[in-house]
Amino acid sequence: MPGRIVAVSMPRPDRMEAWIAEFRPLLPGFTVLPASEVRDAGAVEYAIVWKPPAGLLKGYPNLKATVSVGAGIDHVAADAEYPRGVPVIKTIGPDMTLRMQEYVCLHVLRLHRDQPRLEAAQRRGAWDQHSTPTARDRRVGILGMGHLGQAAALALAGFGFDVAGWSRSGRGPEGIAMFGAEGLEAFLARTDILVCLLPLTAETEGILDARTLGMLPKGACLVNAARGGHLVEEDLLAALASGQVSHATLDVFAVEPLPAGHPFWSHPQVTVTPHVASLIDPKSGGRVIAGNILDFEAGEEVRDLTWIGRGY
Amino acid sequence: MPGRIVAVSMPRPDRMEAWIAEFRPLLPGFTVLPASEVRDAGAVEYAIVWKPPAGLLKGYPNLKATVSVGAGIDHVAADAEYPRGVPVIKTIGPDMTLRMQEYVCLHVLRLHRDQPRLEAAQRRGAWDQHSTPTARDRRVGILGMGHLGQAAALALAGFGFDVAGWSRSGRGPEGIAMFGAEGLEAFLARTDILVCLLPLTAETEGILDARTLGMLPKGACLVNAARGGHLVEEDLLAALASGQVSHATLDVFAVEPLPAGHPFWSHPQVTVTPHVASLIDPKSGGRVIAGNILDFEAGEEVRDLTWIGRGY
Repeated sequence: MPGRIVAVSMPRPDRMEAWIAEFRPLLPGFTVLPASEVRDAGAVEYAIVWKPPAGLLKGYPNLKATVSVGAGIDHVAADAEYPRGVPVIKTIGPDMTLRMQEYVCLHVLRLHRDQPRLEAAQRRGAWDQHSTPTARDRRVGILGMGHLGQAAALALAGFGFDVAGWSRSGRGPEGIAMFGAEGLEAFLARTDILVCLLPLTAETEGILDARTLGMLPKGACLVNAARGGHLVEEDLLAALASGQVSHATLDVFAVEPLPAGHPFWSHPQVTVTPHVASLIDPKSGGRVIAGNILDFEAGEEVRDLTWIGRGY
Repeated sequence: MPGRIVAVSMPRPDRMEAWIAEFRPLLPGFTVLPASEVRDAGAVEYAIVWKPPAGLLKGYPNLKATVSVGAGIDHVAADAEYPRGVPVIKTIGPDMTLRMQEYVCLHVLRLHRDQPRLEAAQRRGAWDQHSTPTARDRRVGILGMGHLGQAAALALAGFGFDVAGWSRSGRGPEGIAMFGAEGLEAFLARTDILVCLLPLTAETEGILDARTLGMLPKGACLVNAARGGHLVEEDLLAALASGQVSHATLDVFAVEPLPAGHPFWSHPQVTVTPHVASLIDPKSGGRVIAGNILDFEAGEEVRDLTWIGRGY
């Protein structure tokens, strides 16, 4: 008899096995199973998911909460049959914030210091010594000022960059110039390196398009570490061809894995990373997720609890 | 009549012109000239130099101080005829410290996040998603804890890395585990990513050789942003071949520019950057240098004043 069940659904079986191995000792009151092995759907109290199949979650009549193995809930909201009364717990552990901070600092510094040009020079065997602007002369803009955006903005400010943030509310941490919903054009016009960390919602889908990329200063750079759905890929290709955007570093794509033959793979002004900006590993992610489930069970506040209707 | 002269000597005439254009308005009491245009050697009171020709400086009988356009004085000390009573003013402006901090953080993060492997995967069109350790599980070691080393160590600690420093005295900033002269082997044994920021002196020349590289854990990485003379290049090639060192990021070389055909250019485990880690640009460097000369003239303390006999 399985008793109370935690069902796990992830697209890659090898990864799911590793996660389940971490969850089991951390959730002693539960039987942790792959969703495909659940026989008694009524015993499922929690589901831990990444890109769950449509209709899976409505099949659990006693589901108390769904856990998204990531900071976004768009992959859950994509299920039109999701039981909308069931809350979603996002996974934003300290490690995820630190990892996103690492990714953003690494790739902003890489663009700031012209590292793609130096790597191309190395392949040609060319000693391409040249000066680059100081950090205070480089304007970085963060689209999306949630936990991850704030941490990235503060870390970049520590290097002396001229950092601004944009969020719907216009609220952000001290020391960061903030722009609100109405200030998008002004925000983009002062941004040399644009970092997208927005949640993917109906409002933000396709926000990086010809119109907004055209509001950046000519030759600006883009780092997208949020979701592929934020970017209109053909508009970016056109902006790279015209020189409006000089380089794009992309961790997320409309279709993942990025399909073979996609023009981004071989584009000299595009850096492709395979959705690793804030990849949660089972060891640290397992602790955060199990902790959130146990807090929820105990009736304690779960900071990253949300609802599909809220959108993020 | 030129009056009081500041002579400037740099190997690249185009760069020297840019520097002289910055110095002239900042040093109104002086005539700033390329060394080759000085007719009255007795009128030279200051010399601003990068890799000066041997014998140049002893030809100025009234020289008050030599300014090194950089944090090192090895390129001045290399002149065996240098008039040893004349002090040397090093150039370590806040920009240089920030730039070195950028370079070190960029390249430590790049190695930490397996970016060379991801770049190779992109060239093959391969979606190589994999986890990497968290920063707290990555031990970074800084060889040389002067101004630049301390700033880099503190910035890395801010990302959560397990940072240690090594200096002759064993002294360093709070929060950084320090090792002194006797602790080199223990320091290297706990270092996954080694960053060299030492001054080049008789004691530190060739310090990165088969013996010390062999003290690192197998598969460690190296970032050398100090001087080419610190590294025994053939020993690094052997350590890369054996897997003892997994990747090296090198900004400095025994011969610069790195000669055509040198094995580093095409080595898949070597990242070559063209001595740009803390390249001083004439605009900000000009202000620092002029400020130091005017302070010296006014009898005020010049923080980065040193002597050839001290070695750094």
